[in-house]
Amino acid sequence: MPSNAPIGVFDSGIGGLTVVREIMRQIPNETIVYFGDTARVPYGNKSKETIITYSRQIVKFLQTQEVKAIVIACNTASAFALETIASEVSIPIIGVVKPGARVAAEATQNGNIGIIGTEGTIGSRIYNQYLSEMNPSVNVYGKACPLFVPLVEEGWLRDPVTVEVAKRYMSELQGKGIDTLVLGCTHYPLIRHVISSIVGDEVTLVNPAYETARTLKEVLESSGIESITPATNHKFYVSDGAEKFKEFANTILPCEVAEIKGVSVGA
Amino acid sequence: MPSNAPIGVFDSGIGGLTVVREIMRQIPNETIVYFGDTARVPYGNKSKETIITYSRQIVKFLQTQEVKAIVIACNTASAFALETIASEVSIPIIGVVKPGARVAAEATQNGNIGIIGTEGTIGSRIYNQYLSEMNPSVNVYGKACPLFVPLVEEGWLRDPVTVEVAKRYMSELQGKGIDTLVLGCTHYPLIRHVISSIVGDEVTLVNPAYETARTLKEVLESSGIESITPATNHKFYVSDGAEKFKEFANTILPCEVAEIKGVSVGA
Repeated sequence: MPSNAPIGVFDSGIGGLTVVREIMRQIPNETIVYFGDTARVPYGNKSKETIITYSRQIVKFLQTQEVKAIVIACNTASAFALETIASEVSIPIIGVVKPGARVAAEATQNGNIGIIGTEGTIGSRIYNQYLSEMNPSVNVYGKACPLFVPLVEEGWLRDPVTVEVAKRYMSELQGKGIDTLVLGCTHYPLIRHVISSIVGDEVTLVNPAYETARTLKEVLESSGIESITPATNHKFYVSDGAEKFKEFANTILPCEVAEIKGVSVGA
Repeated sequence: MPSNAPIGVFDSGIGGLTVVREIMRQIPNETIVYFGDTARVPYGNKSKETIITYSRQIVKFLQTQEVKAIVIACNTASAFALETIASEVSIPIIGVVKPGARVAAEATQNGNIGIIGTEGTIGSRIYNQYLSEMNPSVNVYGKACPLFVPLVEEGWLRDPVTVEVAKRYMSELQGKGIDTLVLGCTHYPLIRHVISSIVGDEVTLVNPAYETARTLKEVLESSGIESITPATNHKFYVSDGAEKFKEFANTILPCEVAEIKGVSVGA
């Protein structure tokens, strides 16, 4: 695969754009082909089998775009499908969970780490698994926050309702003495300020997007396939609602998104 | 089709069970085959083309179950796909929108009718269309309430957060002097008490489920295919998460749901 081939990035919808933003910042030479599965969003309450089926379809589509590596920019899909997909394709596949766990393991001082995410991600206990491999002495406390994704998609990013919902979800974690909290869903960095105002400055918030982009950079370099020429046209595909996606993408990304194409990958 | 053949009922997920409940109450001899598209829920923010594709796949599945009639127990699918589907199959197809509109047109005293539903249903203006055909002098005010479905699915049916969200959504309608409000999404009857406490007793809440079951009864009778023998085993299918669905179904339905089968209809 030529080093100027694009990087494939996918998510259930818009959340993965927070990862794209970080990739553009850290390795601006790389061209992105993004796929947002907006017809089937959300992934967070779907089963492992379904998520693997969907991920496989998307990876197949991204491979028609001749990508040199793929980032699963969705915690639920990383939790459920990364291992299976990685065994099925020959290009590098990077998820967001392992990089996030690594930062959390380094950041904690008292060994008490909170993880917030979808029902799927939390139920999979994948963060617990990685974290206990990295540092067997940490205590990991997971909390599913299923209303955060719809609240972000409604655009209520600084709304009192979002604050109230966040207080409810956080109260369970606050009794555990956590000093580190992983934003284990790519939508959550968009309400980072709300979460931070509730848990306070003494809790370090970990956004796996930053570390994921750094991991991608390392993988590209170690494989000798990092782009040495400027990025060309980034491409954005969605399975539904291209117009709405475009509006949102332009509020998140540092570049203007001129065109979003609709594409069907499964049904 | 024999008169003891089952009735097919489908929805994006659990909401359509409020329609099933009403059918079981009004025409208890009828056997139900239900399909909840829990792998692709919600439908409310998806495009017309996607909803038609999904509905077509589900109808095809229900026809393998040899149903004698189909109820689209989802406002979004009724708004977007009823007309297309009805032109493609030869058995009776009934949606929830027209029956709901009929009750609202009869219920209003001052001619000001509010409609709450998903973005898809409200954006389609389908209630406006039916209502103005039934009574050209009514004023119709639509309001999309995208957080209601996730709140119901979270089980926060009597929660202060749900009350606050409902207040926000209702405030726009309250200035319009409505005396009738259509619960234009099959999830909404489950938070009827919250909505009612906000808009007050002077506003009549219309639940299209009741009228849909009545319409179904009329259609079966006029076609001479109403069941004259007791219902046999109702069947419930979902595209994902059978266990969670079962739990919910047993809180809504008057009969015990012993088994839910998982089935894939599209992707």
